[in-house]
Amino acid sequence: MNETVTVAIEADPKLPIIRMTRDFAATPAQLLRAHTDPELFVLWIGPDSLTTKVDYWDARTGGSWRYVAGRDGEEFAFRGTFHEVGTDRIVQTFTWEGQPEGVALETLWFEDLGDGRTRMHTQSLVDSFEGRDAWLKSGMEVGVNEGYAKLDRLVAEGRI
Amino acid sequence: MNETVTVAIEADPKLPIIRMTRDFAATPAQLLRAHTDPELFVLWIGPDSLTTKVDYWDARTGGSWRYVAGRDGEEFAFRGTFHEVGTDRIVQTFTWEGQPEGVALETLWFEDLGDGRTRMHTQSLVDSFEGRDAWLKSGMEVGVNEGYAKLDRLVAEGRI
Repeated sequence: MNETVTVAIEADPKLPIIRMTRDFAATPAQLLRAHTDPELFVLWIGPDSLTTKVDYWDARTGGSWRYVAGRDGEEFAFRGTFHEVGTDRIVQTFTWEGQPEGVALETLWFEDLGDGRTRMHTQSLVDSFEGRDAWLKSGMEVGVNEGYAKLDRLVAEGRI
Repeated sequence: MNETVTVAIEADPKLPIIRMTRDFAATPAQLLRAHTDPELFVLWIGPDSLTTKVDYWDARTGGSWRYVAGRDGEEFAFRGTFHEVGTDRIVQTFTWEGQPEGVALETLWFEDLGDGRTRMHTQSLVDSFEGRDAWLKSGMEVGVNEGYAKLDRLVAEGRI
């Protein structure tokens, strides 16, 4: 039996930030590929019930991205820019097009734990506590945990 | 004599945000051009003592930009992405390369006051109060006020 690894989600008490931490049996380079190769990204992002298609994707510093997640004819589109794509850090903007005024600034970094393991830290910054708390109450942890479980399987299968 | 218009700068008491408000004798379309046309942008951005050159510039949703401001051989480089370029709103990321870890999410919007006048609102969001307060103490208002005075003159001269 595999262990079930869940993401730790924390709402900063003083800043409009959501932080998440999650360990992977993968190297930083593998996690970077999982987040920058569009063919890999669509295989794991989001909850199991949604199928994701990339519209455009240019994963380099200064590039931009857009993808559409669908289920039974319903579609959810997301877009943003890659402010920075480094070897152990990605900084990007994020908008759900259903609420185009809202923009999050997301930072991911990969902490090498050695022995092929990595702790991934993500930080999502928005401009109000109301917006931050609405995300937390949206059930986001289901999609995050299902997505990372798919990413685990892709690594275990040698596909990343 | 011309009136001297200064920018109103406000630090949000509960969020790591700097807000600025400034009126211009210009239309929203003129202010949009001043912020998106690189040949115009370098004529007004920053304090009088610095000369700005654009390295790259793609002012559309999903584009990116970089410019270098210099004085007596000293150079300050800035870069970011355009998350959104609308008709009355620009959302962009901003990093001073001297502190590459720091990223601000900036939103500008143009409030049409009629009669060829516009109130420009800007919001700069960062991920710590310490970072926000360091910007406020850096003397930023000098460069902002000198820059907007140059923008006023370009409009008055019919160059925008």
